[in-house]
Amino acid sequence: MSDSSDLVRVRMDLAYDGTGFSGWATPPGRRTVQQTVEQAWGLILRTPPPVLTVGGRTDAGVHARGSVAHLDVPADGWVALPGLSSRQPHEAALRRLAGILPDDIVVRSVRVAPGGFDARFSALRRRYSYRLANHPERADPIRRHDTVTLKQPVDVARMNQAAGTLLGLHDFAAFCRRRQGASTTRTLLRFDFSQAPGGVVVGAIEADAFCHSMVRSLIGAVVPVGQGRRDLDWPQEILRAGTRDSGVTVMPARGLCLEEILYPPDAGVAARAEQTRARRD
Amino acid sequence: MSDSSDLVRVRMDLAYDGTGFSGWATPPGRRTVQQTVEQAWGLILRTPPPVLTVGGRTDAGVHARGSVAHLDVPADGWVALPGLSSRQPHEAALRRLAGILPDDIVVRSVRVAPGGFDARFSALRRRYSYRLANHPERADPIRRHDTVTLKQPVDVARMNQAAGTLLGLHDFAAFCRRRQGASTTRTLLRFDFSQAPGGVVVGAIEADAFCHSMVRSLIGAVVPVGQGRRDLDWPQEILRAGTRDSGVTVMPARGLCLEEILYPPDAGVAARAEQTRARRD
Repeated sequence: MSDSSDLVRVRMDLAYDGTGFSGWATPPGRRTVQQTVEQAWGLILRTPPPVLTVGGRTDAGVHARGSVAHLDVPADGWVALPGLSSRQPHEAALRRLAGILPDDIVVRSVRVAPGGFDARFSALRRRYSYRLANHPERADPIRRHDTVTLKQPVDVARMNQAAGTLLGLHDFAAFCRRRQGASTTRTLLRFDFSQAPGGVVVGAIEADAFCHSMVRSLIGAVVPVGQGRRDLDWPQEILRAGTRDSGVTVMPARGLCLEEILYPPDAGVAARAEQTRARRD
Repeated sequence: MSDSSDLVRVRMDLAYDGTGFSGWATPPGRRTVQQTVEQAWGLILRTPPPVLTVGGRTDAGVHARGSVAHLDVPADGWVALPGLSSRQPHEAALRRLAGILPDDIVVRSVRVAPGGFDARFSALRRRYSYRLANHPERADPIRRHDTVTLKQPVDVARMNQAAGTLLGLHDFAAFCRRRQGASTTRTLLRFDFSQAPGGVVVGAIEADAFCHSMVRSLIGAVVPVGQGRRDLDWPQEILRAGTRDSGVTVMPARGLCLEEILYPPDAGVAARAEQTRARRD
């Protein structure tokens, strides 16, 4: 009776303020989002903390508004979640997690995942935002935890021109922290900047997947172009050179936010997961 | 030579995150915005900290994006501010304050005030905003320091209907913390709510002046109407009763932000200050 058919796979959508966390997951002993949420699940299930698999691991200080994770819950623990109330298990879990979690994590939804769903391998693409304040004296101190203030303003049109040259399927080794045996080939689907109120410039960046430090390096390659300190084709030259360039600043974590992880319709999540796993092997 | 003609009156515009402050000014021994900024001025002028007069005193935890204060600076200290640089004194002050102040205060501008300017008495009106999150599970944890999450959502149209009944010249004693001998008659010029992205409702409230706790009490009178727990004319009934009603919650400080203090054109600031002082006497 205790085979995998006794497990319910659960999808949870969540948001967090990364300021107080050493990232999604780090070596033990630090406060991480993963460990904090796993412990909350253990408390409401009265089990050891279950293991979470996430669709987008974030570094220390990076925020998320649209993170997605999955976990496998014993079926008997799942149906017991509402206790004597008439709620569904997913509603009970949402309420009870909200009562336990600290106020820098908000669980947006909990639901039984469609068959074959994997938060990491079923994902089609990830979208991040990056917030830049263009003028130190116009910066909003209330937003200093999620906005990076530039000493020299950027021209949004110039940034968009440079960012556009990086779109498509490329080896992004020049913008990735190298990891033994890992591919750095990715498809950059969107990379543009727009003006927001209060002298803020917001970057939007989307790819099938990102390697480590890739978003912050890509932003760091385009900012000097926007400031007029580098030519329009400089980011593309770095991409082609294929090696990390000391002229590219890895931008600070606090400006970055994981906005959305996109999945296929329910019927397609199993096939997508198999496809991704096959490509990684 | 050391009469008032040796003083330069300076206007400064500033923003702050109220989270880490015990308000603009409180009894000594706590971290306040006023004391922090006065000490920074003392450092750059090499004098004892000068006294700041502000156009909108805020309580502990309340934010500001558009605060305005004035101070009187010895003329010789003012002209000496740039040192050997070719900057104007106001530019030098802005740079040097930015280098000293903590990152929860941003000085937006420093300039010589027009003749007769008084940050408090020349002001025509003050505008505040208040941020409410309508659904706990949609709340943005990154904005939890400046947004109050409601357990029950509000209907914006109902709130606007109720808020509209309070506009105009009234005795707002029912919404003010009473102070011996102080008038509680004010002109409420604007009070409305609008939907913002992410399930957020933003209130805008403007008056010639506000008495203590008035904005937070007015928001607290209208929220239960928006939630359907009170009738549309309940806030107006409280206004007419003229005494504080235990049913009105003084809403939390963190949702509140001083957005703007409006002054007449330069030629009118002296007359406006005289007029306000005469009315207060």
